[in-house]
Amino acid sequence: MPTLLIQNAAVLTLTDAADGTPRAEVLAAHDVLVVGNLISAVQPTGQADPSQFDEVVRAGGKLVMPGLINTHAHVPMVIFRGLAEDVSIDRWFNEFIWPLESNLQPDDVYWGMLLGASEMLLGGVTTVADHYFHMDVGARAIDEIGMRGVLGWAVFGSQGQSALETTERFIREHQGTAGGRISTVVAPHAPYTCDDDFLRACAGLVEKLSVPAHIHAAEMREQTDLSLQKRGLTPIEILQQTGLLRRGTIIAHACGVLPNDIELMADAGVGVAHAPKTYLKLGMDVTPIPALRSVGVAVGLASDGAVSNNTLDLWEALRLCAMMQKDRARNPEVLPVAEALLIATRESARVLGMDDRLGAVKPGYLADLIVVDLSGLHHQPLHSIPASLVYNTMASDVQTVIVDGRVVVRDRHLRHIDPVQVVHQVNRNMQRLAQRVPGQRIQTYQP
Amino acid sequence: MPTLLIQNAAVLTLTDAADGTPRAEVLAAHDVLVVGNLISAVQPTGQADPSQFDEVVRAGGKLVMPGLINTHAHVPMVIFRGLAEDVSIDRWFNEFIWPLESNLQPDDVYWGMLLGASEMLLGGVTTVADHYFHMDVGARAIDEIGMRGVLGWAVFGSQGQSALETTERFIREHQGTAGGRISTVVAPHAPYTCDDDFLRACAGLVEKLSVPAHIHAAEMREQTDLSLQKRGLTPIEILQQTGLLRRGTIIAHACGVLPNDIELMADAGVGVAHAPKTYLKLGMDVTPIPALRSVGVAVGLASDGAVSNNTLDLWEALRLCAMMQKDRARNPEVLPVAEALLIATRESARVLGMDDRLGAVKPGYLADLIVVDLSGLHHQPLHSIPASLVYNTMASDVQTVIVDGRVVVRDRHLRHIDPVQVVHQVNRNMQRLAQRVPGQRIQTYQP
Repeated sequence: MPTLLIQNAAVLTLTDAADGTPRAEVLAAHDVLVVGNLISAVQPTGQADPSQFDEVVRAGGKLVMPGLINTHAHVPMVIFRGLAEDVSIDRWFNEFIWPLESNLQPDDVYWGMLLGASEMLLGGVTTVADHYFHMDVGARAIDEIGMRGVLGWAVFGSQGQSALETTERFIREHQGTAGGRISTVVAPHAPYTCDDDFLRACAGLVEKLSVPAHIHAAEMREQTDLSLQKRGLTPIEILQQTGLLRRGTIIAHACGVLPNDIELMADAGVGVAHAPKTYLKLGMDVTPIPALRSVGVAVGLASDGAVSNNTLDLWEALRLCAMMQKDRARNPEVLPVAEALLIATRESARVLGMDDRLGAVKPGYLADLIVVDLSGLHHQPLHSIPASLVYNTMASDVQTVIVDGRVVVRDRHLRHIDPVQVVHQVNRNMQRLAQRVPGQRIQTYQP
Repeated sequence: MPTLLIQNAAVLTLTDAADGTPRAEVLAAHDVLVVGNLISAVQPTGQADPSQFDEVVRAGGKLVMPGLINTHAHVPMVIFRGLAEDVSIDRWFNEFIWPLESNLQPDDVYWGMLLGASEMLLGGVTTVADHYFHMDVGARAIDEIGMRGVLGWAVFGSQGQSALETTERFIREHQGTAGGRISTVVAPHAPYTCDDDFLRACAGLVEKLSVPAHIHAAEMREQTDLSLQKRGLTPIEILQQTGLLRRGTIIAHACGVLPNDIELMADAGVGVAHAPKTYLKLGMDVTPIPALRSVGVAVGLASDGAVSNNTLDLWEALRLCAMMQKDRARNPEVLPVAEALLIATRESARVLGMDDRLGAVKPGYLADLIVVDLSGLHHQPLHSIPASLVYNTMASDVQTVIVDGRVVVRDRHLRHIDPVQVVHQVNRNMQRLAQRVPGQRIQTYQP
C-alpha cells in the first residue's frame, strides 16, 4: 500500500472537555503518517524516516487539519453563477434557477462538477454531499478528480415512478465505487415539491437500499407557516409522517424549524446542513444552531449551490456560521472558535454518518487532510491558530490536499485534472447555459 | 514625470443612471494611461505605444478598478489580532483591548502599521483613514510603504490639554506630506470617552487647522439609549452641540442612530464608515445604510481594527455590507451589486471628502488603481464581473496595486518593504504585547 509522510506540521486537535465545551489545541512539530487511505500515526517529528515513504509533504511552519466537509451543495450549478443576483426568492427560483436548469445537459453536469470540485479541492474541501441532476456523470467527475462524495440524484414528485427508478439504478451502480470514495443517497428535492406518496416511496428506497436520504426542508420560516396553513403539518412533521425523518437523513437548511420540530429531529437522529452565506444573501432565516446542538442534532457546514452562495468556499461559511449566531443572539460569546472548528470537521462528518472515520487527524481515520499555510500577512502575528483558522483563513491559504491517502492538490496545483481545459469546456457553453426562455422551467416555486 | 501604461484591461465603470440607480459596466480591452500621480486617459487598447512609457503593466484578461478605500481602521492593532475572541463588548474593551494597549510603544505602532498596510496593499486597499495612537510613527510607515493615508492621532478626554497639543503638532507636521499622500484629521475617540469641553476643543482645532474630524459615535443602539438616559441627548446630538457634526466629519459605525440623528447627519454633510464584519462578530447593530443613503449621507467601507475584524480585508467587508442589509430587510433586492461597488469606491472616497479625485478610473483622477485577476476557478464561468467582484473575489486575487501613480505591489509582491522583516519585528515583541496586567488599562468602557 502506498505510504505518505506529512512532516513537521502543526496539527489541529479538537476535543470536547469533560463539561462538553469544545476545545481546540495545536500539536507543534508533529508528523502524520499515512498508509493506504488511512492515518496510521500522529507523532512528534523526528521518529519517522522520510526515505521509507512513497511521498513526503514537508509542512514545516504549516498546519495540518481534517479536510473540510461540504454537507450540502449543488456543485454543477457553478456553471450558472452570477446569473441571479439581487432578486427575491420567488423570482430566484421561477425566473432564474429553474428556467436556467431547463438548459442542462448531462455534459454540463460533468464539466460543472469538475469545475466546482476543482474549486473546492483547491480550497481544502475534501468531501461533498451533492444533490443534483444527472448524478451518474457527476459521480464520474468526482471519481476522476479524486474527491470524496456522498451523492444523490435530485428528484421531484412530478417526475413520478421514473425518478424512483433512476434513483434506484443510480444507487445500485454507484454505491461504494471509486475505491469507496463515493457513497450514495436518495435525494427527493423538498416537501413542497414532492407529495406524500412520493416521499413515502423515497423512504421505501432508503429502507430497501440501506442508504440515507438527503432533502431540503424548512428552508425558512415562511415555508413552515405555509405548510402549517395548507397541511396543518410542518415540513419536518411531513418528513416524519412519510418515513424520511430517520437516522442518517441530511436535512438542508432547517432555518424555519419550530421547537417541536427540533425535538422530532433529535429523536430521529437526523443531521442538518447549514449554508450561512446563502441565508444572509437571500435574506432568509438562520439555522438555530445552539438549539439543535443542545439536543444533540449534528450540524455541519455547507455551501449550497453557487447561484445563491456564489462560491463553494467553506472558510467563508465557517466564519459566517459563527458570526451569524453571535449576531442573532446579540452575544459575541455564542459559538466560540473551537465549536466552529468542530462544526466544520467532526460534526460535518457526523451529519454524513461518518464521524467514526472522518473529520479528525487520528490514527485509523481516513486520510482526508489539508495543509494550510498560515504565513500570509493576514494571519500575522499568529497569536491564536484556531482563531486564525476561523476568522482569517482564505481558500487560497490551502497548500496541499490529501483525499483517501492520495495527494490531489500539491502546492496549490490540482494533480489529476487540467483546470484550463475544464474552464474552456464550460465557457464553450456559456451562452446556451445563460438563456432563459419565458415559461420554460423545470419546476415552479410555490411552497 | 514618470509614466505608466496599464495595457489591455477590462475596466470597471460605475455610474448613477438618470433615475439614481447605480450602474456597473465593464469596458473591454482598454488601456489606462498614467502621468505622474494622475490618470491621463482611459482608451481602447492599441492606440498607446508601450515603448513610450516608463513602466507597463500587462493586464490582458484582468480587471482594473479603483483601489479600495478603508474609511475607518486602527491598523497597528493587527499586532493584537486573535487575542480577544468570543467575549462580550464590555470584556472586549475592559479586559482585552485597553489592557493590551497599555503595552503599546511607538515602535509597535510603526511595525504594526507596516504589517497592516502590507496586508491591505496586497488585498487592494490603497487608502486608509486610520485612527490610532503614536500616529507620527504611523505616518512614517504609511509614507515608506507608499500608501495613501488620512491619519488621526486618537485622543481621549481624560488626556486633556496635552492631547490637544499632540493633535495640533501632529497635524501641522504631517498634513500634506509624503508628496500629498498623507492628510490628517482631529481624532477624538468617542462621545462616551470625551467630555463636551474636550469635544468642543477638538471642534476648535478642526476650525483652526482646516482638517476634518474622525470619531466613533452611536456604535450600537445601547450607546444611544444610555446617552439619552444620562444626557437627554443622542451621541450624534452631542456631536452637533459640541461643533463636531460638520461637513467632512467621518463618523465610525453609526449603527445606533435614530431617525432624527440621520436628518442631522444629512444636514451637516458628514460621512459614515461601515465595518460590517465587526458588527456581525460582536453581535452589534448594523449601520442603516439605505436610510442614510436616501438622504444623501455618504457611507463607505471599513475594516475597523483587526482585534474585532481579524483581518483588514475589504472584499469581505464589501460582500458583508451588501448581504447584511439584505438580511436586515429580509429582502435580497436591497443593496444590489452595482450599489455595493459604488459604496466601496466613489462613496468611500466621498466619506473622506475626496470623491472629486479618488474612487473612479477617470482622466484627472488620482492613479490609485488595482489590477484584479478573475481567472481563478472560484470566478468561473464569469457570467458577471460586477457580481464576481462583490461575492467571489478574495484579497489574494489582487495582482498589482498602484498608489499615486506608483506601482507598490507587482504580481503580488510588495515593492518598497520586506514583509519577512516586518513579521520578524512584530513577532519579536509578541509575548510582551500579549500580556494583560489586572487593572492596567488605558481607559474604561462605560458608555
